[in-house]
Amino acid sequence: MAKEKTLDDLFLEVLKDIYYAEKQILKALPKMAKAAESDQLRRAFETHRDETKGQVERLEQVFEMIGKPARAKACPAILGMVEEGKEVMEDFADTDALDAGLIAAAQAVEHYEIARYGTLRTWAEQLGIRGAGRLLEQTLKEEKKTDELLTKLAEAAANQKAA
Amino acid sequence: MAKEKTLDDLFLEVLKDIYYAEKQILKALPKMAKAAESDQLRRAFETHRDETKGQVERLEQVFEMIGKPARAKACPAILGMVEEGKEVMEDFADTDALDAGLIAAAQAVEHYEIARYGTLRTWAEQLGIRGAGRLLEQTLKEEKKTDELLTKLAEAAANQKAA
Repeated sequence: MAKEKTLDDLFLEVLKDIYYAEKQILKALPKMAKAAESDQLRRAFETHRDETKGQVERLEQVFEMIGKPARAKACPAILGMVEEGKEVMEDFADTDALDAGLIAAAQAVEHYEIARYGTLRTWAEQLGIRGAGRLLEQTLKEEKKTDELLTKLAEAAANQKAA
Repeated sequence: MAKEKTLDDLFLEVLKDIYYAEKQILKALPKMAKAAESDQLRRAFETHRDETKGQVERLEQVFEMIGKPARAKACPAILGMVEEGKEVMEDFADTDALDAGLIAAAQAVEHYEIARYGTLRTWAEQLGIRGAGRLLEQTLKEEKKTDELLTKLAEAAANQKAA
């Protein structure tokens, strides 16, 4: 009989899910930066791309800490969100609403990550893998900061222009 | 030549997206409640299902305010998240980690909604549809409260049992 699954298995599943998601995000961000109308938004996407590289490395460290190979597992949710971002880029190209749409798409992604990293951080602590908890917490803070910056950009520039 | 798209169009697009998402969530929540191991988590899902019905009605009011028929637009992101929830229910059925997995899946959905309602509320204010802004703000608060409750349940009961 198969061994009963535990929180360790769940932790690994979600880790693979967010590892896949981060790699998709890494591919999407340069496209979003290129599409952005405002310099501020373009820079925000570029900065977050660099940050995302570090987040991928942190995930690889967590895989190492639990003695598992770093493997991605297809995450349909992130594919859906990236798809929605692409739609905005196509449907709102050359319109004043484009940046507002890009920010909205990016914030959906940020919130997905905030949920995932919050979950993984809590589980890491419960499983007693403290080092992993700290790494996941660092990324969680970065994602929250990015989300806040996007909110500011939405409220200030992009949306006013769009309206 | 087609009229250039504006923030009004973007608002309508995202409104249709979240309307679709809420309807999917309305179908998923009873299944999650039925699957939940702990009474507390089952009740949380049941309560949120009732709340979600009200949120769907609020969205219908917003459609009315902007003079558009209430129409859903397929949202691949939410379908992906519901799919991930189903996987957890199958893969972790009858294990002590099930509730932790259900909570994680639900929190991903809550965060998607938090992103969407935050965006729509900000746009409603910028477009000067104040009544809509207030309705969207009400739902945003409910989603945040649900997310906080799920965090508490994850930290307290479900995860400790799972570990």
